[in-house]
Amino acid sequence: MANEVIKIALLGAGTIGGSVIKFLRENHEIISKRAEADIQIKNILVLPQEIEKLHAQGLPATENYEEILNDPEIKIVVELMGGINPAKDFALQAMAHGKNVVTANKDVVAQFGSELFEAAEKNHVDYLFEASVGGAIPIIMPLKRSLTANKITEILGIVNGTTNYMLTKMSEDGADYETVLKEAQAKGYAERNPAADVEGKDAARKIAILASIAFNSRVKFEDVSIEGITKITPDDICHAEKLGYVVKLLAIGKESELGIDVRVHPVLLNKNHPLASVNGVLNAIFVRGVPIDEAMFYGPGAGAPTASAVISDIIEITRGILTNSSGRFGCTCYEQKKICPVEETVSAYYLRLLVADKPGVLGQIATTFGNTGVSVKSVMQAAVELENHAEIVVVTHKVKHKNILQAQDALEKLSVVDKILSNIRVE
Amino acid sequence: MANEVIKIALLGAGTIGGSVIKFLRENHEIISKRAEADIQIKNILVLPQEIEKLHAQGLPATENYEEILNDPEIKIVVELMGGINPAKDFALQAMAHGKNVVTANKDVVAQFGSELFEAAEKNHVDYLFEASVGGAIPIIMPLKRSLTANKITEILGIVNGTTNYMLTKMSEDGADYETVLKEAQAKGYAERNPAADVEGKDAARKIAILASIAFNSRVKFEDVSIEGITKITPDDICHAEKLGYVVKLLAIGKESELGIDVRVHPVLLNKNHPLASVNGVLNAIFVRGVPIDEAMFYGPGAGAPTASAVISDIIEITRGILTNSSGRFGCTCYEQKKICPVEETVSAYYLRLLVADKPGVLGQIATTFGNTGVSVKSVMQAAVELENHAEIVVVTHKVKHKNILQAQDALEKLSVVDKILSNIRVE
Repeated sequence: MANEVIKIALLGAGTIGGSVIKFLRENHEIISKRAEADIQIKNILVLPQEIEKLHAQGLPATENYEEILNDPEIKIVVELMGGINPAKDFALQAMAHGKNVVTANKDVVAQFGSELFEAAEKNHVDYLFEASVGGAIPIIMPLKRSLTANKITEILGIVNGTTNYMLTKMSEDGADYETVLKEAQAKGYAERNPAADVEGKDAARKIAILASIAFNSRVKFEDVSIEGITKITPDDICHAEKLGYVVKLLAIGKESELGIDVRVHPVLLNKNHPLASVNGVLNAIFVRGVPIDEAMFYGPGAGAPTASAVISDIIEITRGILTNSSGRFGCTCYEQKKICPVEETVSAYYLRLLVADKPGVLGQIATTFGNTGVSVKSVMQAAVELENHAEIVVVTHKVKHKNILQAQDALEKLSVVDKILSNIRVE
Repeated sequence: MANEVIKIALLGAGTIGGSVIKFLRENHEIISKRAEADIQIKNILVLPQEIEKLHAQGLPATENYEEILNDPEIKIVVELMGGINPAKDFALQAMAHGKNVVTANKDVVAQFGSELFEAAEKNHVDYLFEASVGGAIPIIMPLKRSLTANKITEILGIVNGTTNYMLTKMSEDGADYETVLKEAQAKGYAERNPAADVEGKDAARKIAILASIAFNSRVKFEDVSIEGITKITPDDICHAEKLGYVVKLLAIGKESELGIDVRVHPVLLNKNHPLASVNGVLNAIFVRGVPIDEAMFYGPGAGAPTASAVISDIIEITRGILTNSSGRFGCTCYEQKKICPVEETVSAYYLRLLVADKPGVLGQIATTFGNTGVSVKSVMQAAVELENHAEIVVVTHKVKHKNILQAQDALEKLSVVDKILSNIRVE
């Protein structure tokens, strides 16, 4: 067994923290060999009421962060508290005390990445965050280390398990949004307040992190154009199916001439796309680049498996300490690229319209698309229950978002158009 | 731009070599920033008749390896020659001269891994081989660095593009093996002598490499039980489809109580398995472990995109040189585990039998399975063109390979069984 001992502290002992504790124990032998060190948990920061529970399990625990900060034996602080405060300050304080930091905290990385990487560099320590995106999926290190030869042009992610589970269920069962949300909440896949997930904010934080690495330029949460899945209906999923698509909430980063195009929204995704068969709570990140062409990384996006990413970061830092190469890889945002305004981004679109069922309607609609510079690829008419009405499903060629907004405005003014029921990008 | 200059030499300028040259040029700016160094090709070893061609492109070239070995400026030798000789000796010589080595050579790594890693350690250099398995797909570094927290229990790979292309075409077009082979050869996806691919040897070398890393114990090519795709028929693919499976050539490594179970053979793979939708020349590697549960890595398995893996290894070594941490990660075969004999390996099986079409046949067959300890999961009878005959398709529960061999022997002795048409494992 390894001679060297590396002592660490955990901040938080919830789902991921508990899993880290469990697997550092269960896989102790293989981890020790791979790390070439015996990794020991020296202390765990928890709420006062949790201390006794941890002690009962033979685990160290404290409610006082100073105890960890001032313990010179602790080389790695593993922040698994979540939220901005006090997680961010705790990470900065740890680094100021010469300690390496591992985090699973997407909020902190997405919002304060620059500041944290700066602190890591200044203090010659590592700040690793593999678990912050895609849960257990190795994606941060592969992007930073294995795809370095590539000019990455596109990164597409299914990075929110809650919404992917919901869309999968809507697709399989034909159930509506509200029904599926309740089911997801009952199963613990969605939180009681599901806003961060279903409105796309969680995915937006993750794509901000991924895009920053892929394009070597800092992308912040505020840069992401966001739309959630709350308006998706079983009808849309059904029409998509007929057209050869599945509906997915994608986090998208692309590099265009106008800057980094970064957004989160539902899309109609071609059934043959590798991401199309990623179902349920699973996550996957698809990367397009030159010369790799395409690559995809797939796995569990949340929960206990995330310990895989956290512990691997701990091992990586341990190897750095033992070989005197801490801080070997820091911030990789060498560039300062513009963000492409969402109006200028380019997509194909799927629009579903409720129209009057009478002759000439299709002609008026087609003319309106033409007048606003939108080229139509296919039109499908569907019967509806509402008397004297019909549904028209239009798929456009690639156009700028601003053109679609113009087309939508003009369509809404037509007397034959009752309502624009859906407007979803096609990827 | 970076100040440091790192000079490298390539051995070979074929498909991958040419692509490495191309993308080191085209992506020079981003590579320099990510490597924090200007990576320059100082020399290229080629055949005498190729020298002029390279010079005409403004590239350095030599037919004399000594020139590269004795050039103290060259820090990294990139071996892209393929084959065992002289590639293996050239790599050893480079390391003996204190040079780091990058290789795409699965043959050398699978057969002489121990010797090469020993040389790397002795000479304090890096020996990296990301491109040797899965072409462009990042899998070696993720296994060695990102999944280190896991007890890996299973690794399944579609690691041969030729056979995956052929099986995909057979499935899509209903064409037979010979037809599809000719088509693959015409498209350049299969070699004129396709033996290494279709007989599973190429995949066997790759799973030997992957299993060695996953289970931390050296697995050699000779340890792999191998069966190719030459006996797969459109009928099998069609029956598989009806049963909810696709046919794939899988490279399999599992850890069992009896040792490492490592094999290459066609399987009936459940349609919902993440590997089932990996089609054409694409490759993917699926990993099962604790705590990650499951992960998959997907991308192009051969050709020009492989430059992504080769150049990323060059950048990784460059970062090691610049931070004085060369040799940070070497051989990870800490253990000496047994290889599980193939007779003891456990699978479910699909058997297709040509039988006499008369009453009582099914009973005799079922009894024979029972007598040899094989539990049957499902039986399907199909009509055949041959008069007075029928086909019986049996899917078993999980049994030891030796039991299936016994069952097969006993079935062949039954007068009602004309022939065992197929015997394919179900994964």
